Amino acid sequence: MRTHDIRFPTSEHLDGSDAMNPDPDYSAAYVVLTAGDGLEGHGFAFTIGRGNDVQTAAIGALEPYLVGRDADDPATLYRELVYDSQLRWLGPEKGVMHMAISAVVNALWDLKAKRYGRPLWLLLAEMTPEQLVELVDFRYLTDALTPREALAILRAAEPYKADRIAELRENGYPAYTTSPGWLGYDDDKLRRLCRQALEQGFGQIKLKVGADVEDDVRRFEAAREVCGPDFPIAVDANQRWDVPVAVDWINRLRPYRPHWVEEPTSPDDVLGHAAIARAVAPVPVATGEHVQNRVVFKQLLQAEAISYLQIDAARVGGVNENLAILLLAAKFGVPVCPHAGGVGLCELVQHLQMFDYVAVSGTMEDRVIEYVDHLHEHFADPVVVENGRYRAPARPGFGAEMLPESIDAHTWRGRACEPS
Amino acid sequence: MRTHDIRFPTSEHLDGSDAMNPDPDYSAAYVVLTAGDGLEGHGFAFTIGRGNDVQTAAIGALEPYLVGRDADDPATLYRELVYDSQLRWLGPEKGVMHMAISAVVNALWDLKAKRYGRPLWLLLAEMTPEQLVELVDFRYLTDALTPREALAILRAAEPYKADRIAELRENGYPAYTTSPGWLGYDDDKLRRLCRQALEQGFGQIKLKVGADVEDDVRRFEAAREVCGPDFPIAVDANQRWDVPVAVDWINRLRPYRPHWVEEPTSPDDVLGHAAIARAVAPVPVATGEHVQNRVVFKQLLQAEAISYLQIDAARVGGVNENLAILLLAAKFGVPVCPHAGGVGLCELVQHLQMFDYVAVSGTMEDRVIEYVDHLHEHFADPVVVENGRYRAPARPGFGAEMLPESIDAHTWRGRACEPS
Repeated sequence: MRTHDIRFPTSEHLDGSDAMNPDPDYSAAYVVLTAGDGLEGHGFAFTIGRGNDVQTAAIGALEPYLVGRDADDPATLYRELVYDSQLRWLGPEKGVMHMAISAVVNALWDLKAKRYGRPLWLLLAEMTPEQLVELVDFRYLTDALTPREALAILRAAEPYKADRIAELRENGYPAYTTSPGWLGYDDDKLRRLCRQALEQGFGQIKLKVGADVEDDVRRFEAAREVCGPDFPIAVDANQRWDVPVAVDWINRLRPYRPHWVEEPTSPDDVLGHAAIARAVAPVPVATGEHVQNRVVFKQLLQAEAISYLQIDAARVGGVNENLAILLLAAKFGVPVCPHAGGVGLCELVQHLQMFDYVAVSGTMEDRVIEYVDHLHEHFADPVVVENGRYRAPARPGFGAEMLPESIDAHTWRGRACEPS
Repeated sequence: MRTHDIRFPTSEHLDGSDAMNPDPDYSAAYVVLTAGDGLEGHGFAFTIGRGNDVQTAAIGALEPYLVGRDADDPATLYRELVYDSQLRWLGPEKGVMHMAISAVVNALWDLKAKRYGRPLWLLLAEMTPEQLVELVDFRYLTDALTPREALAILRAAEPYKADRIAELRENGYPAYTTSPGWLGYDDDKLRRLCRQALEQGFGQIKLKVGADVEDDVRRFEAAREVCGPDFPIAVDANQRWDVPVAVDWINRLRPYRPHWVEEPTSPDDVLGHAAIARAVAPVPVATGEHVQNRVVFKQLLQAEAISYLQIDAARVGGVNENLAILLLAAKFGVPVCPHAGGVGLCELVQHLQMFDYVAVSGTMEDRVIEYVDHLHEHFADPVVVENGRYRAPARPGFGAEMLPESIDAHTWRGRACEPS
């Protein structure tokens, strides 16, 4: 295992600025696992700057669990890491330690996909329903989703898999762009980037909101003017509001018809999201990028708190836990629209969403993958978005691999906690 | 700031063994803050072994936020640490980074209490309602508790404070003991320790359950025989069950009348706890030691999921966040019965609970502080439990200070991540 504390000075241009995160420095606590035969698996936890050293140290602390183990069995290692009783005390299944597990589990999947010569989405899509169910940890889920129900969902997709794989290879998967909407951009830049998004063929955009309601109304109005009355425009408050404030604020934005309102309040507040959703219906509520694990997603679905579920590839416990979350969403009939952006999140999450289309939900209807045009040049297999759609990755692996020169150039030289 | 990775080999004697934690090594990621005049504040995050190096590194990462700051204002530093947008990404407000903030905030309170020559419970109890409300972060709480409501709760206690302080100094606060109930102990030891608990004057005991239902029934029966039919015996499953399993298991234990059933399932599962509570009523459900922050406690109360709320002194964001949680519990009329045990948790949490008696809930009725007779000898001001009651601490500070020779003897010599 090698780890790297990698940070990009994105705050210099206010890229990624929103109501809760005024100056993110997109960062990766990055891990490379090398198998006995020299094949490498790459993974990372995404952070926004300070603390990336702690996140990197947490990944390093997992090394003793990995050395000498079967690299071909991520599911067993996922379970061992999550249920190590002493490590579990540091979460359980949340925060720094869970993101560390995510990075390692995703690196193991990258390694496995490379070994089998498949992009991850295809590797997963070609597994049988029985194999896929074996990957999932159903602990704390069985009141909402049993292994038998999961198997039924996966079996129902079987007859259509080959057609869907062909469809993805032909036409890719729809994307939406958040690039016009960062809070640090002025109105002219917002309008210009809205026009650009339309020209580039995106079928949806997203605006950041939540700092000042008058500004939000003005910016939403400007975006509506450029995009037209029926174009889907989502808004994202990045957890800025308390429940009563959220309801009032969303009602101010309602005339501009938000496609969804994302992260209106704390990601931990299931009942708060449910209360907001009831109060602002039919405006749809979305969340997920900061949701810590499958147990909270389960409750968001049980409480009918969200109309869109936003998985993140690197926050929950990696591919295995995201598989559980995709199955939960399918069971409850809620569309999944992944969170991406940051550094490398687009590269990862496209695989999960394309797998979902082939083998779980079986549809792209009302589903889009977030796209942000930042930092892709640092990756060995960068995403390709054309005419507003993600092209299906063809290269083996899970997409996390950064270029050696990028790792070298952006390794943090500040005071570092050396993990091993 | 100095940090220490301190670990005790408690797993050797199965002290602290339960259904999820078979072999804990009680550990402290320990921090000492030194003010300009040499006065020290001590705090720690409690872990159970592996990963304590990561927890210690996380505390070390906070040093730049503290150096040169006003040591007398923990509330401002608490807010700055929790709302540092880059650090916040690592939680938010949960897991390793939040426990690191807790350790530092508690150390600042220890320092402040020493400066004012008061035990922490008394320092807090002597503050005005207005001052106390200023310590609380109401973000994400205002749908359940407003500053105005908090002020009303605190003002209602004002006339009785002096009497309650005298009462605490005279008679202390009731304790219960978990010492008989560890899962690794055989039935003879269980009976012997139950008898001992009665002789020592404890008014309640707790048994660990959740590994094997037949064993649990047998052990509960044995404890009932020793303690008699009306003695309060709580049980604790340490998150072992899914919702349907919890309901069945608790129904098997119901004839032995558990005083409460603690942590029946995931600490993240508000709706799960609520479903269990409805299904097993009137058996009371309790949780809290692993509840990550005030937002989850708020929901447990809103959903009527718990009949007892169990604060922990070192998991949420320190004194300030626990003050919010005590106020929430008072608003909803749910008794607080703190989690303790581990290493040093008794020393800390007694202060919060005694403050609650004086200035928040105003009652000890149906309330007990957990007591476990482990590792107190390592503390400069160890708890004193006599006749089943905690004696009110008189020495200035918050109780976290360990003896220098204990720190030295138990500093972990394994591979360590050196935080600074």
